Amino acid sequence: MGRLTGGDPSLLRRINSAVVLHALRAADFATLTEITRVTGLSRPTVEGVVEGLSEAGLVVETDADEGGARRQGRPARKFRFRAEAGHLLGLEIGAHRVAAVLSDLDGKILGTAAKDVSETAPADERLERLRGAVADLLRRAGVSRGSLRAVGVGSPGIVEADGSVRLSTALPGWTGLPLGERLRRSFKCPVLVENDANAAAVAEHWKGAATESDDVVFVLAGLSPGAGSLIGGRLHRGYGGAAGEIGALHLLGREVTPETLLSTTDEPLHPLDEQAVAKVFAHAREGDERARAAVDRFIRRLVHDVGALVLALDPELVVVGGWAAGLDDVLEPLHRELTRYCLRPPRVTLSLLGEAAVATGALRLALDHVDEELFAVEGTVTQRHQ
Amino acid sequence: MGRLTGGDPSLLRRINSAVVLHALRAADFATLTEITRVTGLSRPTVEGVVEGLSEAGLVVETDADEGGARRQGRPARKFRFRAEAGHLLGLEIGAHRVAAVLSDLDGKILGTAAKDVSETAPADERLERLRGAVADLLRRAGVSRGSLRAVGVGSPGIVEADGSVRLSTALPGWTGLPLGERLRRSFKCPVLVENDANAAAVAEHWKGAATESDDVVFVLAGLSPGAGSLIGGRLHRGYGGAAGEIGALHLLGREVTPETLLSTTDEPLHPLDEQAVAKVFAHAREGDERARAAVDRFIRRLVHDVGALVLALDPELVVVGGWAAGLDDVLEPLHRELTRYCLRPPRVTLSLLGEAAVATGALRLALDHVDEELFAVEGTVTQRHQ
Repeated sequence: MGRLTGGDPSLLRRINSAVVLHALRAADFATLTEITRVTGLSRPTVEGVVEGLSEAGLVVETDADEGGARRQGRPARKFRFRAEAGHLLGLEIGAHRVAAVLSDLDGKILGTAAKDVSETAPADERLERLRGAVADLLRRAGVSRGSLRAVGVGSPGIVEADGSVRLSTALPGWTGLPLGERLRRSFKCPVLVENDANAAAVAEHWKGAATESDDVVFVLAGLSPGAGSLIGGRLHRGYGGAAGEIGALHLLGREVTPETLLSTTDEPLHPLDEQAVAKVFAHAREGDERARAAVDRFIRRLVHDVGALVLALDPELVVVGGWAAGLDDVLEPLHRELTRYCLRPPRVTLSLLGEAAVATGALRLALDHVDEELFAVEGTVTQRHQ
Repeated sequence: MGRLTGGDPSLLRRINSAVVLHALRAADFATLTEITRVTGLSRPTVEGVVEGLSEAGLVVETDADEGGARRQGRPARKFRFRAEAGHLLGLEIGAHRVAAVLSDLDGKILGTAAKDVSETAPADERLERLRGAVADLLRRAGVSRGSLRAVGVGSPGIVEADGSVRLSTALPGWTGLPLGERLRRSFKCPVLVENDANAAAVAEHWKGAATESDDVVFVLAGLSPGAGSLIGGRLHRGYGGAAGEIGALHLLGREVTPETLLSTTDEPLHPLDEQAVAKVFAHAREGDERARAAVDRFIRRLVHDVGALVLALDPELVVVGGWAAGLDDVLEPLHRELTRYCLRPPRVTLSLLGEAAVATGALRLALDHVDEELFAVEGTVTQRHQ
C-alpha cells in the first residue's frame, strides 16, 4: 500500500535532480530563477541540485547572452544540459552486414558506419567485423570509448533478459551465444541486446513511419518474417522474448519452408539467399510463369503471417520493412487481403528508415536506458506506491 | 513535466480518502490509531476522512470486540469498510444462454442466475431474457436495483469504447447494436461492455486457471475461436477492440468456413450448432472414419489459430475454454503441436471456470471500475507527473 507522506532523503535528492535535468533539457538554457519557477522547487534546493549536476559534468554554465537585451548590472547566470557529456551507440548485427550509429545524450546522430559480412561467417568473425565498424566510427567522430554511457544492439533471434541469444536460426553460431556478455568486454557501459524486429519497431516509432501511432506492428519481411510490436507506445517482448516470431506459423500443419515456397525448380533456394529471391521476383515481372507462381506463394505466405499478427494484436498501423519491403508488389496485396479479412483492418505502410531501422532502434533503446537513469522522475515516484 | 510540490486540496482529500479505504479494506476492522500508523497520515486527517467516509456510507463503526482481550476503560472505536454499501453485476449474453452474477463491493459472490435463449433469437428477445435473469437474481438476493454501483457485460463481437457492438457474426441483430446504451436504460449505474473472450481471460486471471500468470492468452474455443489476452496482467484490447479475433485467420488464402470443415457430408453444418458438432466428435470416438477426419481438420484449425496467437504474443500460459474445451482430444494435440513449432512454447491448460467464465470476468470489470473510483491512489498521484 502507498504511503503518501515522509520519504527517503536520497530518493528525494534523486527526484529533484531528475526534475531539474528534465527542465534544462527541454529548454536551451535557463537561469536559476527560471528553473525554480518551472520545477516548483525552492531556490536553495535548485542551487544545490545544479551544483551537484555541474560537478557530475551534466550541467554547465553558459554565456548564451548574444542577441538578448543587455540589462544593467551583472546578468543572471544561465545553465544548460551538456548533451556532449556522454555518447550512445546503436548496433545492428545482421546476416549480411553489421552497422553502428553514434549519438550524444540528446540522441543527435553524430555518425554511422557499416561493414558487409558473409552470411556464413562464424560468430567470432561477425563480432570482429562489428568491433571494426565501431572503432572506425568512434575514431572518425573523435569520441573516446570511455565516453559511452550505453550501447544498444539489434540482432535476429530470441534474446534473453541478460542479452544471451536463446535461439537464432538466421546467424551461424548465434543460438546460445552470450552476446551481451561478449560485447560488455568491449564496452565499459551497459549493453542492451534486443531482437532486430523489435529494435526496428522502436526506430520507426521514434523517427520513421510510425511516429503518429502507439499501436504498431513492424514486419521485418524476409524469407522468414519476424515482427516487433508496440502496444501503447511500449515494446511488447512477450513472456519469453519471443513475441512476433511468426516465421514458424506456416509450419503448423503445413510443412513448407520459405526456401521451397519460392523455388522455381525442384531444389529449394539457399537460405538467406536474397539475390536468388530477387531474381525470382525479376523473372516474375518479365512474365515467367513459374516465377510468377512462386512470387504468389511467397506473398500469400507473407499476407497470412501478417494477418495472424493483425488478428492477434489489432494494431493501428502495420509497417513493412526488411528486405522484402524493397520488392514491388508486396504492399498492395497485403493491404487488399487485410482489408478483406480483418474485422478492423489496420493502415499498412512501408518502412521509412529502410536498412537503418535496426541500428536506429538499438540506439533509441540505449537512449531510453540512459534517460531512465538520469531523468526517471515517474519511475522513482511511482515506486512509492507499490 | 512533473511538479513535485504544492497540490490541489480536493485532490489531496481524494487521495487521503482512497488511502484510508485501502487500509480498511485490507483489514477486517481498525482503530483510528491503527489507520494513522498504517497510512502515515496525521490523526486529525484520519479523523476527518473517516467521518467523511462514514457519511458516504462506505465506512461504519463496528463493535467487533468479541474474543479480544478486554482492557480497562473505554475501548478504542473500531471501523470497517462497508462492502454491503453497494453491489455489482456481471452479465453474459451468449448465443445459447444469458447469465448474471451478483457481488458486494468486495467482489464476494451473492448469487447467480442463467436462462437459455435460442441462437436465432433477435436482439430484443435476448435482452428481455437477460433482464428477466437479472430481476430474478436481485429479488432472490434481496438487493435493490438502486444499490448497483456498476454492471459489466461480456458478449461476442468487437465492442467499441462506448459499449456499442461494431461487429458480431455470432448473434442475430448484434452488429451495430448500441448495447451499452440499451442496458443503461435498465440500470442507473455505469455499464461496461466487453468482448466475451476478453472478459473470460480476466476471470481466469482473477479466480481461475491463470491466477499465477500475468501473460495469458484465453482461447474461447468454439466453431470459430476467439481469444482474450492479458499482457502484464492487463487486458490487451487492441487499437480498435479487435485483438484476438483470430477466427478469420483461416480465411486468409483458404476459403474454408468452420461449418464446412467439420461437415461429414457435402452440406456444411448449421452455424453455432454445437449439438451437431458434438455428434461428429462422438462418431469419431466410435471409429467413424469420416467423423475422425472432420475432427482432425477441426483440431488442426484450432492448433493453427492458437499457434498464431502464441507466436504473435508469446504468453506464459494458454487457457482453453469455451464449448470445445469440453471435448476430448483437444488439449493434447494443442500442447504437442505448440511444443513442436513455437520457439518458446507456453504452458497449456483447461479453463477452471467453465461456462461461468464470461459473467465472472464481466463482474471483475465492474469491480475494477468501482475500485478505480473509490481506491484510485496510484492513478490520481501519477496524474501529477503528466
